Amino acid sequence: MAALDPKAEARCRTSFAAQPAMTTIGATVLSVKAGEVEIELPCVPHITQQHGFVHGGVVTMISDSACGFAALSLMPEDAAVLTTEFKINFLSPAKGERLVAHGRVIRAGKKLMVCLGEVFAVDQGTRKQVALMTATMMVIDTAGGLRD
Amino acid sequence: MAALDPKAEARCRTSFAAQPAMTTIGATVLSVKAGEVEIELPCVPHITQQHGFVHGGVVTMISDSACGFAALSLMPEDAAVLTTEFKINFLSPAKGERLVAHGRVIRAGKKLMVCLGEVFAVDQGTRKQVALMTATMMVIDTAGGLRD
Amino acid sequence: MAALDPKAEARCRTSFAAQPAMTTIGATVLSVKAGEVEIELPCVPHITQQHGFVHGGVVTMISDSACGFAALSLMPEDAAVLTTEFKINFLSPAKGERLVAHGRVIRAGKKLMVCLGEVFAVDQGTRKQVALMTATMMVIDTAGGLRD
Amino acid sequence: MAALDPKAEARCRTSFAAQPAMTTIGATVLSVKAGEVEIELPCVPHITQQHGFVHGGVVTMISDSACGFAALSLMPEDAAVLTTEFKINFLSPAKGERLVAHGRVIRAGKKLMVCLGEVFAVDQGTRKQVALMTATMMVIDTAGGLRD
Repeated sequence: MAALDPKAEARCRTSFAAQPAMTTIGATVLSVKAGEVEIELPCVPHITQQHGFVHGGVVTMISDSACGFAALSLMPEDAAVLTTEFKINFLSPAKGERLVAHGRVIRAGKKLMVCLGEVFAVDQGTRKQVALMTATMMVIDTAGGLRD
Repeated sequence: MAALDPKAEARCRTSFAAQPAMTTIGATVLSVKAGEVEIELPCVPHITQQHGFVHGGVVTMISDSACGFAALSLMPEDAAVLTTEFKINFLSPAKGERLVAHGRVIRAGKKLMVCLGEVFAVDQGTRKQVALMTATMMVIDTAGGLRD
Repeated sequence: MAALDPKAEARCRTSFAAQPAMTTIGATVLSVKAGEVEIELPCVPHITQQHGFVHGGVVTMISDSACGFAALSLMPEDAAVLTTEFKINFLSPAKGERLVAHGRVIRAGKKLMVCLGEVFAVDQGTRKQVALMTATMMVIDTAGGLRD
Repeated sequence: MAALDPKAEARCRTSFAAQPAMTTIGATVLSVKAGEVEIELPCVPHITQQHGFVHGGVVTMISDSACGFAALSLMPEDAAVLTTEFKINFLSPAKGERLVAHGRVIRAGKKLMVCLGEVFAVDQGTRKQVALMTATMMVIDTAGGLRD
């Protein structure tokens, strides 16, 4: 997709940085384009589950974030984004050096945006898909008090 | 649902405690019954998103865990549990003193178990539902190497 | 839930009757209450799949309808209902004398309503759950042209 | 994806033809490749809802079928396919001359296959996506009695 104007990209990056939960798990923004965002997460021990893989909920968090900011990148400047629902299928154990979540807007409506999220495990140069998500993001009027 | 035999309950609690991701967010097991588990999570700053609510992905993590251990509580002793998919609808912002996720098995098959997860925000004695999940858990033969 | 005023009930029944797809499969409205609707479907051959069970898509249709009309029953008189998404888990083969889909509103927002759908197979007096759905219904302003 | 051997394609087409529900709505198989199937459905009145669009449940039926047969095309000859769950997001009203559902296997496991379904409305040479589905298909051992 097209490059984003610098102001919109800065807005996405600032909003992402304002999420303590993302700092807690160690996720960072890899790229921001119009309707398309990538989030990166090193596979470190404090985010794993009982079998040593990255916890499915953590995989979900970065996929949700990638979808949410992909949606935000297409919203008017005074709107905020809220996840209304998502569904995720886990395809393979989330293990490797790091995970990359790729979120992309499939349908950009005025009130709702539908996104596709794909999470990949990267290990020694190979890339394997570990999860597939579909999500609905709501365009929130910031007159209601929320702001991104 | 019925009380669980102490051995099965201990197994669920031990498996839960073996998840670093749950320690990272601060979640604990509130109750374990046969096919029914409750997880508790105080609403603390390091798990919030940019609007100050608990991050939707974190809400998802405790709901997934409650469903997964509800399923595990009904599995044979030598089986492990793996989430194959879930979907969650967010009903209200996750804010308050603490969240309680309640997971329950709706259909216990030999290979797959379908669960319902409900997450509530508790604040000053009131309880409001913030999320609704349906999930599929897979019964894994531990001969494959996984163990709960 | 509470009984619906006769006007709102009539509106739901009229809107249901205006769906040729429901006539094609043979579905009828069993009950309409405030936020809660039941749809009935006899298990007849022309709606089955290759194994002789009612087709999963048909099970989905009546669950979606039960949820949609449950949502409509709570909407202002000049609003229309549109399904934005649903997810369904199939629990058992859909076979028996008839299916009953029960839809109920879990969260009634101004713009979106989240519903829970449950489908049961009834056979010789017994009732077995065959499917579990969660759905999001959108409240559509009929100034846009749609009308229920 | 690769072409399928004629025997496997014939098996998919025969199994599809054995579904009365598909005949009832008027759906036909457009193409069968390895892990990828297309189903076509003319937009005729008897499958519409109250606003004149093709009923969301019918859109779901052809997407489910496309995914199910895409999965079946990759299964051993003596296996049958069963949908365990799916989720669908509706992107635009389903109207036009005909709908085309495209199903494709994203992850082919031994027990479960995860598929992506996309439904398009075709009208006067243009093609617009109307729905997005993710689905889990189960590989059933026909020793249990089912057969495709």
